[in-house]
Amino acid sequence: MLRLGGDIDVERPDTLVVEEPLEIRVGGRPLAVTMRTPGSDMDLAAGFLVSEGVVSAAEHVAAQRYCAGATSDGANTYNVLDVALAPEVPAPDPSVERAFYTTSSCGVCGKASLDAVRTTARWPVADDPVTVDRAVLAALPDRLREAQRVFDRTGGLHGAGLFDPNGELLCLREDVGRHNAVDKVVGWALREGLLPLRETVLLVSGRASFELAQKAWMAGIPVLAAVSAPSSLAVDLADEAGMTLIGFLRGASMNVYTRADRLRP
Amino acid sequence: MLRLGGDIDVERPDTLVVEEPLEIRVGGRPLAVTMRTPGSDMDLAAGFLVSEGVVSAAEHVAAQRYCAGATSDGANTYNVLDVALAPEVPAPDPSVERAFYTTSSCGVCGKASLDAVRTTARWPVADDPVTVDRAVLAALPDRLREAQRVFDRTGGLHGAGLFDPNGELLCLREDVGRHNAVDKVVGWALREGLLPLRETVLLVSGRASFELAQKAWMAGIPVLAAVSAPSSLAVDLADEAGMTLIGFLRGASMNVYTRADRLRP
Repeated sequence: MLRLGGDIDVERPDTLVVEEPLEIRVGGRPLAVTMRTPGSDMDLAAGFLVSEGVVSAAEHVAAQRYCAGATSDGANTYNVLDVALAPEVPAPDPSVERAFYTTSSCGVCGKASLDAVRTTARWPVADDPVTVDRAVLAALPDRLREAQRVFDRTGGLHGAGLFDPNGELLCLREDVGRHNAVDKVVGWALREGLLPLRETVLLVSGRASFELAQKAWMAGIPVLAAVSAPSSLAVDLADEAGMTLIGFLRGASMNVYTRADRLRP
Repeated sequence: MLRLGGDIDVERPDTLVVEEPLEIRVGGRPLAVTMRTPGSDMDLAAGFLVSEGVVSAAEHVAAQRYCAGATSDGANTYNVLDVALAPEVPAPDPSVERAFYTTSSCGVCGKASLDAVRTTARWPVADDPVTVDRAVLAALPDRLREAQRVFDRTGGLHGAGLFDPNGELLCLREDVGRHNAVDKVVGWALREGLLPLRETVLLVSGRASFELAQKAWMAGIPVLAAVSAPSSLAVDLADEAGMTLIGFLRGASMNVYTRADRLRP
């Protein structure tokens, strides 16, 4: 890598964010391929299945293993992970349409996307009694950043941090994809028997999209905070769920889009 | 929206980035659903098909139309777009595995992902003779940002800008998803008969992932620049393609990962 713009141009090694494909299989059948940063792959796969409404408790996952012999010379790439579900858990439908047509009579639209999540969500977050001090929220971005040593070195990894209402970090995961970082946190919580994640705050390092809000709802998280902007559909989903959604969280400055009653001055 | 952290807390309307699902159909058959910011939808769908290796010239697309009657009351959601291909163009394979198994004997891994793109890419970018002044590159992020009025208002939209070697902006597109913004630019170029995009520079507002580098290669773009970090697989792909990849482009400061010979001091 050639670094330009300093006093002199310098050729130097660079710490790059690793990105590799991960194929998630369920019962041997391909379900999804995601470009991810290797690490916590089993949590990623499990969290993805929570987000999709397939599993909701640790015992729903009977086993996870990397598929051996994935290459022509028999080597394991560690990029194909097969999840065996417990016998009583129905296998997911791998079709493109699954997320949008399962429950809706209105075709593809934001409303239908919300309907699909509401019908799939297992846990209410609207009645979660958690409250959080503003000062605690204001300190979270710095705490996330401190914990993200890799982020500081490469500048290229998204972080997702799960906090308790006192601002204690419960779990941090990083990934080249923000949705993967969140899935890794949720998969960790599934494995630890912590679902639903009542009375927690999830902080993500970038924007809050519909997809991230969906993942938070599916894991039972009552407060979602983002360092950057939320989308219209993320706000709609938070409103529908009764989730507190905070955007542009930068120190004491923040925008509260829904359920501001959970914030204490 | 409640704005906290100023002298007083204020309740005020907020300009939110719009996010809505778009289902792309080909010949009536669902191919993909993407969460996007409405606008330039036909360019988005066409650019997506360029990225997937399905079309490479304007005449490959016979027609595009929103599917009417998508809702139960017959209203059009403008979220389902059907692309009719010209008779001689083979329809794409909508399976999950398509991007990874088409050409590879090595299973799912970074190498296989690169192989799949190399085999699909129609145009060489390695021999593109373009050169760009460093000073021109240094000015691009400000030009992109100036052109992104919506970005400045909401802080939540990604931008993709296509520039000529003199730094003139040829096309700007924005979206809640960076990949969508790039697809919109590429679809515009397809419609204008500009593919392959020889002697151009594509600047993206955030990180450079494998997916974005793939889209640049598929459109024949020789120089890809990102304001933030590239991933390992994006650098590998740029190296394989003979594409110039620049990261952390912030004024005169930039990292050049591949083909630095195209930069003039």
